[in-house]
Amino acid sequence: MSAYRQLVDRFNQISAIRGASSMLSWDAETMMPDGAAGVRGEQLAALAGVAHEKITDAALSDMIEQAKGEALDGWDAANLKEMERSFHHANALPNDLVSALTKATSHCTHVWQAARPKDDFESFAKAFEPVLKLVREASVAKSEALGLEPYDAMLDEYDPGMSSAQVDEYFGSLQAFLPDFLSEALEHQANNRQFKPLEGDTPTAAQEKLGRKFMTALGFDFNHGRIDVSAHPFCGGVPGDVRLTTRYNDDAFSQSLYGVLHETGHAMYELGLPEKWRGQPVGQARGMSMHESQSLFLDMQLCRTDEFFAYALPVVRDTFGVSGDTWESENFKRSLLEVERGFIRVDADEVTYPLHVMLRYRLEKALLSGDLQINDLEAAWNDEMKKSVGVVPDRVGNGCMQDIHWPSGAVGYFPTYTIGAMIAAQLFDTLKTQVPSWAEDVQKGEFGAVFAWLRENVHQKASLHSTPELITQATGKPLDVEIFKNHLRDRYLS
Amino acid sequence: MSAYRQLVDRFNQISAIRGASSMLSWDAETMMPDGAAGVRGEQLAALAGVAHEKITDAALSDMIEQAKGEALDGWDAANLKEMERSFHHANALPNDLVSALTKATSHCTHVWQAARPKDDFESFAKAFEPVLKLVREASVAKSEALGLEPYDAMLDEYDPGMSSAQVDEYFGSLQAFLPDFLSEALEHQANNRQFKPLEGDTPTAAQEKLGRKFMTALGFDFNHGRIDVSAHPFCGGVPGDVRLTTRYNDDAFSQSLYGVLHETGHAMYELGLPEKWRGQPVGQARGMSMHESQSLFLDMQLCRTDEFFAYALPVVRDTFGVSGDTWESENFKRSLLEVERGFIRVDADEVTYPLHVMLRYRLEKALLSGDLQINDLEAAWNDEMKKSVGVVPDRVGNGCMQDIHWPSGAVGYFPTYTIGAMIAAQLFDTLKTQVPSWAEDVQKGEFGAVFAWLRENVHQKASLHSTPELITQATGKPLDVEIFKNHLRDRYLS
Repeated sequence: MSAYRQLVDRFNQISAIRGASSMLSWDAETMMPDGAAGVRGEQLAALAGVAHEKITDAALSDMIEQAKGEALDGWDAANLKEMERSFHHANALPNDLVSALTKATSHCTHVWQAARPKDDFESFAKAFEPVLKLVREASVAKSEALGLEPYDAMLDEYDPGMSSAQVDEYFGSLQAFLPDFLSEALEHQANNRQFKPLEGDTPTAAQEKLGRKFMTALGFDFNHGRIDVSAHPFCGGVPGDVRLTTRYNDDAFSQSLYGVLHETGHAMYELGLPEKWRGQPVGQARGMSMHESQSLFLDMQLCRTDEFFAYALPVVRDTFGVSGDTWESENFKRSLLEVERGFIRVDADEVTYPLHVMLRYRLEKALLSGDLQINDLEAAWNDEMKKSVGVVPDRVGNGCMQDIHWPSGAVGYFPTYTIGAMIAAQLFDTLKTQVPSWAEDVQKGEFGAVFAWLRENVHQKASLHSTPELITQATGKPLDVEIFKNHLRDRYLS
Repeated sequence: MSAYRQLVDRFNQISAIRGASSMLSWDAETMMPDGAAGVRGEQLAALAGVAHEKITDAALSDMIEQAKGEALDGWDAANLKEMERSFHHANALPNDLVSALTKATSHCTHVWQAARPKDDFESFAKAFEPVLKLVREASVAKSEALGLEPYDAMLDEYDPGMSSAQVDEYFGSLQAFLPDFLSEALEHQANNRQFKPLEGDTPTAAQEKLGRKFMTALGFDFNHGRIDVSAHPFCGGVPGDVRLTTRYNDDAFSQSLYGVLHETGHAMYELGLPEKWRGQPVGQARGMSMHESQSLFLDMQLCRTDEFFAYALPVVRDTFGVSGDTWESENFKRSLLEVERGFIRVDADEVTYPLHVMLRYRLEKALLSGDLQINDLEAAWNDEMKKSVGVVPDRVGNGCMQDIHWPSGAVGYFPTYTIGAMIAAQLFDTLKTQVPSWAEDVQKGEFGAVFAWLRENVHQKASLHSTPELITQATGKPLDVEIFKNHLRDRYLS
């Protein structure tokens, strides 16, 4: 068997083990009784250990070198490149550091969960200090292994090939634009887009039915996935068996509905990946920015257009059995496009969301480099919030302690949310030209052509190209912040 | 670290990996969308492969030899013995044979599922032939590795330490007794125990509620387990996270109810195993006979007593909102103790069930030894059914093709059902003496003392002793067929 074929077998095996972990993580959030957390932790640790053994096996390095001499092309050549990337990432950290990080982040997320509602910054800071120290060590180790700057080495895990220089360019342009634009949009909203709260009962059972109706219309394949309830919505499982979740609030149906649409976007990407390359590095989704672009393509682009509202509103009214003037189309639309200065990232609209993200990006870079001390984090956060979003958190639990990312050691993840939003805007912009029937289709609740385009240009490409190449091939140009800005202008100043 | 400690770590790891498999198997039967079967198969195969690698690691053999010099006692000594047993079983079969068996049984169960409803014996036989050939090879390989006769080597996997000589003794005595007893019981029933079918609606939702009520009363810990629906009821998951299943038939509530009680018996055993020894061979349930004794202790012993009926009937009536003379206590009891000559093992009552089992035991031994050819199986089956149960299957799908055991390569499993029934009778017989409050307790729906006794005498002993030792310690005497016979006489001739 050729070295490359041996690698293919090995990666199939690793992928199956990681897939098993993914299913167990889904179960832990949706089905598992609370008392089983300890037992489940041991199962997940054992599988992580086995997958780590398999990918840090020294023989892999030789196989990769040998395979390079095997004259591969196309998908196979790209696959070998991704195998090597995967190998380097996994081998960059010594085992001691990996297990120290696992322990420290597990402890810190645990402390954080209890400390956040109590605004107990001190406890959080104490548990976060070793995490930050170990993340810094990890970034240095990855920097050496990958030949990247420390922050870029972290970023590379979530968005392969992305650099902080590139992020700085995008974010510089957006930061210069957004605060003023936000004021303008809010003024426009106050003058032209007042709305009345939607009145009527929207009970959980009907919300669930509604979510399934839209998932079905969008083409979600219930023969290869399901939807359940969890405290924190996510899209889990594996390609071919996607498990997405939502949560229901009787009094706020649109949160769940757009949550479902968001996760359905992620799910359609996983379900649309090429079956032939399942289990191989090249067959995986391209990265977190591209993944977020697929959720936001539905959540913030397609499903907040007039065309979608025209299709969706009758379905919503019918499912809830509601009527009256608050459910008229203009009021419905305005209620779903409200802009607001707020403290909380996950509740933010698409205008303020990037401000939340860019603030985190600046602060986590400063934390990693040591320019910012944990003790100064709260003051820096509040100061940046004031300048950027225009509000200061009412309490630290709603401020720098609001996200799970840092306690869990995920530094370098935040930028992908906003890069994803930019990619989504650019993809939709292109789709409008290339699939001119989209508007008519969507008003009728037909999404076949839209997803055929996404499948061909994004999903089926998996990790064949780098993110910038993928964007350029799909849209005819590199990622362009102006398209996102124009989208915001069109939507919020009209 | 001592060799024994290293073994403990290794077995914890193996147990966690197998536990992960067990959760994924549960998910496949309860939650997984159909289209994901292929993906799931790959995950399960990868985990089985990893667990197999870990337990067939040549270093284990040395560690075991070293650990024998480490002066262990009590639980540790027993654990080492079980480790060795586990190692020998896993290493008895060459890898080629394991993977050939996996393929052949997977193919055969698939063929069997389609062939059974169509009475297509020919297709089944063709797929079963390679399975039988490989099982025969496996029994020879195990025979050599374990120093046991081929059939005994198969039996040992399900009921450690049990021999066919011992089974022959039990079954010889039972076979000499049961056919005549069955006629007597049926005559007694016709003369004294006629009953009217229970009348009224027993919809699935109410059945589910009823099952949960009884599980709660019995002490099932919903913080460490759950109940769901599957096509074939089972008790899965792991100790600390037990997943049991049932199925509902609106018109036959007692099937589901006693199914739930049966699986709850299995579940209570798993949940009652000593937490300290979780993940270690000595901490596991003692074997399939002992496991079945725990399910039958509820299903056939405790929960079919007058005392249980006195507690249960008002709960049943109340949950379904039914009344009338068919729901009076004597009629209710008779309906749950009906004896009948039938074709199907899983539908059989406790009088005919052992006849079904003993028939299979005789035939599978003959198949394994080569004394019986697959082509002669149907005739042999029907002949034995006529002599033993007194009826001939209406069709081959209800005859020798009814069980999944043989298609899946499980030869040596069947005897454990009836040995389990005998153990259950003997345990309950002893409990009545040692926990004299049982009758009063059970009538009040209090099961604490009953389960305290089971926990102390069975569950907490895990695999510390052999099955015969465990029975002798718990009941003061070796397994005695007469106790089971007396139980049947008391119940069905009174």
